Amino acid sequence: MVDKHGETIASAVTNLDLHDIARAAKTYGVRGYYVITPIEEQLALVRQILDHWIIGKGAVYNPKRRQALELVRVNTSFEAMRAEITAEEGCPPRTVATSARRHSGSLSYRRLREMLNHQAPVILAFGTAWGLSDDFMADADDILDPLAGAGTYNHLSVRTAVAIILDRLLGDENEVQRI
Amino acid sequence: MVDKHGETIASAVTNLDLHDIARAAKTYGVRGYYVITPIEEQLALVRQILDHWIIGKGAVYNPKRRQALELVRVNTSFEAMRAEITAEEGCPPRTVATSARRHSGSLSYRRLREMLNHQAPVILAFGTAWGLSDDFMADADDILDPLAGAGTYNHLSVRTAVAIILDRLLGDENEVQRI
Repeated sequence: MVDKHGETIASAVTNLDLHDIARAAKTYGVRGYYVITPIEEQLALVRQILDHWIIGKGAVYNPKRRQALELVRVNTSFEAMRAEITAEEGCPPRTVATSARRHSGSLSYRRLREMLNHQAPVILAFGTAWGLSDDFMADADDILDPLAGAGTYNHLSVRTAVAIILDRLLGDENEVQRI
Repeated sequence: MVDKHGETIASAVTNLDLHDIARAAKTYGVRGYYVITPIEEQLALVRQILDHWIIGKGAVYNPKRRQALELVRVNTSFEAMRAEITAEEGCPPRTVATSARRHSGSLSYRRLREMLNHQAPVILAFGTAWGLSDDFMADADDILDPLAGAGTYNHLSVRTAVAIILDRLLGDENEVQRI
């Protein structure tokens, strides 16, 4: 990830990102939601939250939350995650990076929707803070078109951007077909 | 709003709902984001958050956040908000309620998208906690189709549901047209 000034950083994992993104992933039938952070304290925090909701008191209080959080996996690096998915799926995943800025040759939602119907696995990568690093973007197989709203303002939280993009890619086609 | 057991309650306003929903509203060109609560302490909390980001230190730290939060207005009742909008717009707004459950005769996203192009003003109402009360739903002019994901799991946070619905109704048509 990068910070406000473009420096590469490891951003903090927030409790609410974890819940909101897991719930959206579960709603749209995503196979797994990986949280990547090199910081051991952050990994421990995520594991503690997951334990509470999957095997602790939270699982009894709100079983729907457990079903969502069961999708979460943690890892210390993107490459380790990629190796894990490759081993499980028997083929390397395609990496599609997301960005709030437009990149030349970026992939349309329609095209990625088609790809998801015919090819798998695909990693859809989101960065918190000020986004994914330039190196990561350069290494990705594709970059997805940015979300377009009504004007030039384009500052969604990562939680809401993930949810909107999953809806565009995996939401019920008939229900939401645009005019 | 109603709680887990269907009793009518006033739910808590959360800081993150305020930020995320304001940012989505600004991104999709929504005219105003009204936070309705009858609880004076909640209203005071919202005003304190808004002051920080609009005229306080937050406005300097992050001007984009100010632009979003400037859309927020608070009120103690839905009827008072409705009267305010009626006075400003010169005609009463149409109220479209949202729900995670399907209601008979509910409005499609396509139809509401058309309505928004031709009629105004429209209030799009969301409930936190376990949703809007039955009385509110019965009084609404329309109920919007629920969001459909990939299966039967349908437990998005209100923040993410608002963002997805705004994208379906107000997102760039060409960019996101489904197959």
